[in-house]
Amino acid sequence: MRYAVLGTGVVGRTVAAKLASLGHEVVVGTRDPQATLARTEPDAMGTPPFAQWHQGNPGVRLASFADAAATADAVVNATSGAGALDALALAGAENLAGKVLLDIANPLDFSQGMPPSLDPVNTDSLGEQIQRAFPEARVVKTLNTMNSSVMVDPARVAGEHHVFVSGDDADAKKAAAELLASFGWPAGSVIDLGDITTARGTEMLLPIWLRLWGALGHADFNFHIQGARAGA
Amino acid sequence: MRYAVLGTGVVGRTVAAKLASLGHEVVVGTRDPQATLARTEPDAMGTPPFAQWHQGNPGVRLASFADAAATADAVVNATSGAGALDALALAGAENLAGKVLLDIANPLDFSQGMPPSLDPVNTDSLGEQIQRAFPEARVVKTLNTMNSSVMVDPARVAGEHHVFVSGDDADAKKAAAELLASFGWPAGSVIDLGDITTARGTEMLLPIWLRLWGALGHADFNFHIQGARAGA
Repeated sequence: MRYAVLGTGVVGRTVAAKLASLGHEVVVGTRDPQATLARTEPDAMGTPPFAQWHQGNPGVRLASFADAAATADAVVNATSGAGALDALALAGAENLAGKVLLDIANPLDFSQGMPPSLDPVNTDSLGEQIQRAFPEARVVKTLNTMNSSVMVDPARVAGEHHVFVSGDDADAKKAAAELLASFGWPAGSVIDLGDITTARGTEMLLPIWLRLWGALGHADFNFHIQGARAGA
Repeated sequence: MRYAVLGTGVVGRTVAAKLASLGHEVVVGTRDPQATLARTEPDAMGTPPFAQWHQGNPGVRLASFADAAATADAVVNATSGAGALDALALAGAENLAGKVLLDIANPLDFSQGMPPSLDPVNTDSLGEQIQRAFPEARVVKTLNTMNSSVMVDPARVAGEHHVFVSGDDADAKKAAAELLASFGWPAGSVIDLGDITTARGTEMLLPIWLRLWGALGHADFNFHIQGARAGA
């Protein structure tokens, strides 16, 4: 499969490296590839420059959002939530039409101070916004409820735990579940919550996730729905 | 201990019955006790009238919000979220001052249609609203992330699972944890998220809880934070 991973941050890098390790052809999309590669200093969060990561992952190509999406079979939105709609517009509706679009981002809003809040929230979600803006894309919201290291290596967290999928297209959700299986997620660990409006629920896990991160002092944890099996 | 349980719905009844079974003196508070007892039909949700439940729980007294709170050592807010601040105002700030106030309600907003949304949400919470409105009460948000039957009988859900506490008063949280232990919650199952602002995170679990309820077809489930122990 040819994947476009939109976003050059830690989440995009982690997912791109995993996809490449599984034998997929991976292009990371960014607004301005030259600018992305020109950075030589860690960002405000301490993340090393993309060029440094790229040296260790030479099989992954860097391209514009549009170039990355044009040649892809499936697209992963790993941008910051606030930048997602702009990035996808640059990727181009025609390059998203008919394709599975995995939305793994969260609409974190840092404008109200720390900890971040969500925008949209409650009666809307980023997943829904993306599906409305790109009605021909087959959006599946998933993987947004955990740290990126756990997304691609669920065994980092011992014991059973869950990953959620939300979306309007049953076949797209099936494709997402297959990808999750290839990442190491057991079949029983995937909970299909329903249509894309259920992305509200998974995005709204972020506030407690952030507080748990603070309370526990590490990010190697995940939500497990105890009792899910009885009725699943 | 003398407990006031504010609210005559399923959650209030369930918690009142459990507290009474543990030997506590329990008064259920309502706006108008005569009106509450006069109802003979199930409500819109199919809940049997309070009088019927009361016949089976004769040791629990019914009183006005103020009467219930006045004689109590600790107060449980089991009203509907939308009615919580009004009910607590009727209970009286002077009757709440210095007391542990367990807020187990969620601010569900049915005005935007189904499924309900939350109001407040995101940058505020019902727990915080209550603490601001009654600064001398020692508010602990807890138990609001599960069905009421699980609140008082965690063994209904097999395996380990968690209950959260949020609040500004460490001694009040300790008292809450002791009450939770008496309900059957193992010590390791209580996660202290921090101050009362962390109630945003637990209230924001409700949207996915409602969707899981729909997807699983039953309410005997609960959140378990897998990996919590490693760093706890």
